[in-house]
Amino acid sequence: MRHHDQNTTTCIEECLRCYQSCFGMAMTHCLETGGKHIEPKHFRLMTACAEICRTAAHFMLMNSEHAKHLCKECAEICDQCAADCEKLGDMKDCVEACRRCAEACRKMAS
Amino acid sequence: MRHHDQNTTTCIEECLRCYQSCFGMAMTHCLETGGKHIEPKHFRLMTACAEICRTAAHFMLMNSEHAKHLCKECAEICDQCAADCEKLGDMKDCVEACRRCAEACRKMAS
Amino acid sequence: MRHHDQNTTTCIEECLRCYQSCFGMAMTHCLETGGKHIEPKHFRLMTACAEICRTAAHFMLMNSEHAKHLCKECAEICDQCAADCEKLGDMKDCVEACRRCAEACRKMAS
Amino acid sequence: MRHHDQNTTTCIEECLRCYQSCFGMAMTHCLETGGKHIEPKHFRLMTACAEICRTAAHFMLMNSEHAKHLCKECAEICDQCAADCEKLGDMKDCVEACRRCAEACRKMAS
Repeated sequence: MRHHDQNTTTCIEECLRCYQSCFGMAMTHCLETGGKHIEPKHFRLMTACAEICRTAAHFMLMNSEHAKHLCKECAEICDQCAADCEKLGDMKDCVEACRRCAEACRKMAS
Repeated sequence: MRHHDQNTTTCIEECLRCYQSCFGMAMTHCLETGGKHIEPKHFRLMTACAEICRTAAHFMLMNSEHAKHLCKECAEICDQCAADCEKLGDMKDCVEACRRCAEACRKMAS
Repeated sequence: MRHHDQNTTTCIEECLRCYQSCFGMAMTHCLETGGKHIEPKHFRLMTACAEICRTAAHFMLMNSEHAKHLCKECAEICDQCAADCEKLGDMKDCVEACRRCAEACRKMAS
Repeated sequence: MRHHDQNTTTCIEECLRCYQSCFGMAMTHCLETGGKHIEPKHFRLMTACAEICRTAAHFMLMNSEHAKHLCKECAEICDQCAADCEKLGDMKDCVEACRRCAEACRKMAS
């Protein structure tokens, strides 16, 4: 990935890790556990978080000048998702991935 | 699609039409014509426009409260893409799809 | 969309319509209705169907020689999804979109 | 990612690495170098490879029973892409990522 600088490469990796964690857990842990894990508000937030991470990574990979705007939005959604997952409990991987991604995205967006 | 109101349904359709036009033309017309059509700046803008349209539609389909932010970004990229395609010429479908999508997205974002 | 022949254009449109129906209903109707609508097997099938439709359309838009393989897989998943939605009931839009998409994809794949 | 077995986790990671390499290089190195790097056949193959990798990962993350079919298709496209990139030269990262991904996908598909 020598065609992207170090900050960008790190942020792409954090976004894809967070995408994996959010989408992977939503479609396994959340669906199978049920209850609060599949309340529309929570499940939608997990899905939105996974999608914005995937898209922000895509924009960074293509060196788009708009990548910063996507990273700014990504940081906001990740923060919300981290808070929601923490409140629910039993979602430690997801909380951590969201927090790291939010931090990397804020750095990119600034 | 009775689960989304009329403005949202219209905007989803304009986004997916614009995605089809931008991505379809980039990967056929632009690649095959070459020259200015595959200059990195233009080709990246077409690709970014296709992707933001696809993502904005995805957020509207899931009734995410963040859909408005994606629509705002989508309108900006569509405006840029329309202007760039018009300057190049021979991209009438794309110009029109971008303009219609930008307008629908601005309505959603407001 | 003059850069794709009529069969391809029709199939792209059916795929994107089915994507809208499956993903839109999964994230609204299914999540909000709960019960059998969010059983992992059903919800996963809806999500898989939405994603394969989105991807098959993407491959056709880029005129990839591999589009046929994606359309073949898309037809199979759409058939399954139509059957599952019909059994559940109250998913008429989705059943119809899946059936039309499966038919268009089989034509493309042959 | 404890919700997926080790083979699946490895394959998801190889798919996302290959996606990053193919899409990232297509949109930077290939577009900026021009010439053979943006011939429609090559550029389309890079784009198709990136997309099938992204989609195969998505299906594995959701534990879909159809993931195997996507992995089979992914292995074929990765093999083609590796061969094409090797012939072109100056695409070592991409060749290697495609080969590793193809191998992991074949294991998943079997």
